[in-house]
Amino acid sequence: MQKVVLIRHGESLWNHENRFTGWTDVDLSEDGCLQAHKAGQVLKKYDYNFDAGFTSVLKRSIKTMHYILEELDHLWIPVTKSWRLNERFYGALQGLNKDETIAKYGEEQVQKWRRDPNEHPPAVTKEDQRYPGHDLRYKDLTDREIPLTENLSETMDRVLPFWNEIIVPIIRQNQKVIICAHGNSLRALIKYMDNLSDEDVTKLEIPTAVPWVYELDKGLNTIKHYYLE
Amino acid sequence: MQKVVLIRHGESLWNHENRFTGWTDVDLSEDGCLQAHKAGQVLKKYDYNFDAGFTSVLKRSIKTMHYILEELDHLWIPVTKSWRLNERFYGALQGLNKDETIAKYGEEQVQKWRRDPNEHPPAVTKEDQRYPGHDLRYKDLTDREIPLTENLSETMDRVLPFWNEIIVPIIRQNQKVIICAHGNSLRALIKYMDNLSDEDVTKLEIPTAVPWVYELDKGLNTIKHYYLE
Repeated sequence: MQKVVLIRHGESLWNHENRFTGWTDVDLSEDGCLQAHKAGQVLKKYDYNFDAGFTSVLKRSIKTMHYILEELDHLWIPVTKSWRLNERFYGALQGLNKDETIAKYGEEQVQKWRRDPNEHPPAVTKEDQRYPGHDLRYKDLTDREIPLTENLSETMDRVLPFWNEIIVPIIRQNQKVIICAHGNSLRALIKYMDNLSDEDVTKLEIPTAVPWVYELDKGLNTIKHYYLE
Repeated sequence: MQKVVLIRHGESLWNHENRFTGWTDVDLSEDGCLQAHKAGQVLKKYDYNFDAGFTSVLKRSIKTMHYILEELDHLWIPVTKSWRLNERFYGALQGLNKDETIAKYGEEQVQKWRRDPNEHPPAVTKEDQRYPGHDLRYKDLTDREIPLTENLSETMDRVLPFWNEIIVPIIRQNQKVIICAHGNSLRALIKYMDNLSDEDVTKLEIPTAVPWVYELDKGLNTIKHYYLE
């Protein structure tokens, strides 16, 4: 049996303001920092330690990881950061307040954008400042890899190669892994790991900064999963 | 021309208490945290940015790096942590107050231990709690790699393979590198880069958390170096 800990970053400033964030590199809120430290303390209480950490390239996930590792006195483990663990790219919704978006497009459409795995939010153009091609951290991505918008299936398409090619080999070496990512990149991962239907993944709500333990068998099938509190 | 930025970690709690630290994983002092943030602000003022960071596996260097990258809004760059960049292993002097050590062994002997590249401090035994073999982070090191004591030449012997095999290839890809390490691991590196004599390296005092820019030619020979303030 192998344990993998998944965790969504602590509350960000835009979670707090109820805005679509996506790849916008928004910082943790003060509460978010506290949540991250608390997650580390909880993991410590249950004697968890790790050999390797994985985050997105967004500071809310990187800082959550740092605070957790600081509480565990494990800042020295290797931490790999990848755009493949980024939040879903919300296209032209990024930066908009969710209530305003509902007022403009209607509850049903917004709910579809948020939860229907095949529904695309409006795309950004390459001229839009929100287009990730303008950001140095994505300079090694191919044009095809840089999203203009993303549905959950597309998020899944870029999360899974990282899981299968980078994280799984590490788990198979019996290394203990913690992954700090985002609501939708974790949804994408869990949809795959637990073979969830589109409907089930829609209902999946992941709280911020609560360690979520996945116990896997030798074939990396889920035996059970639970939150640590 | 290629620039590499070297930086010694911010003041640690034991720098402050004037104790031999070595591989003891002592945290930054409050001043040390401020120094690290300031170093990041100074680098930002001069428009520095980086493609890759390197630290030891000691939290005072890792946290200094995090604070610098946070100020530069560059937390997303890959940071590689290696024991090879650790401070010199000070053997059985680790934890002792420097004044007390002088009172016990005499100024001359202590100065030799601190500065003579060929002088060994008293060794720890493998039963000593300070022996690094007890620490999980060194579990992949061979018995021969784990020090009982170290002189500066031996520090140099383990720093240089990391420089030559890991960092140099990255610099040769035209990546901009920042290395956050320790007084003696930086001395060891500089002794090699600048071909310093034992006497010259003895005199080399490196301030905490001041960015130290090395301009290198294509052969990675030093053109000039200077502190940023």
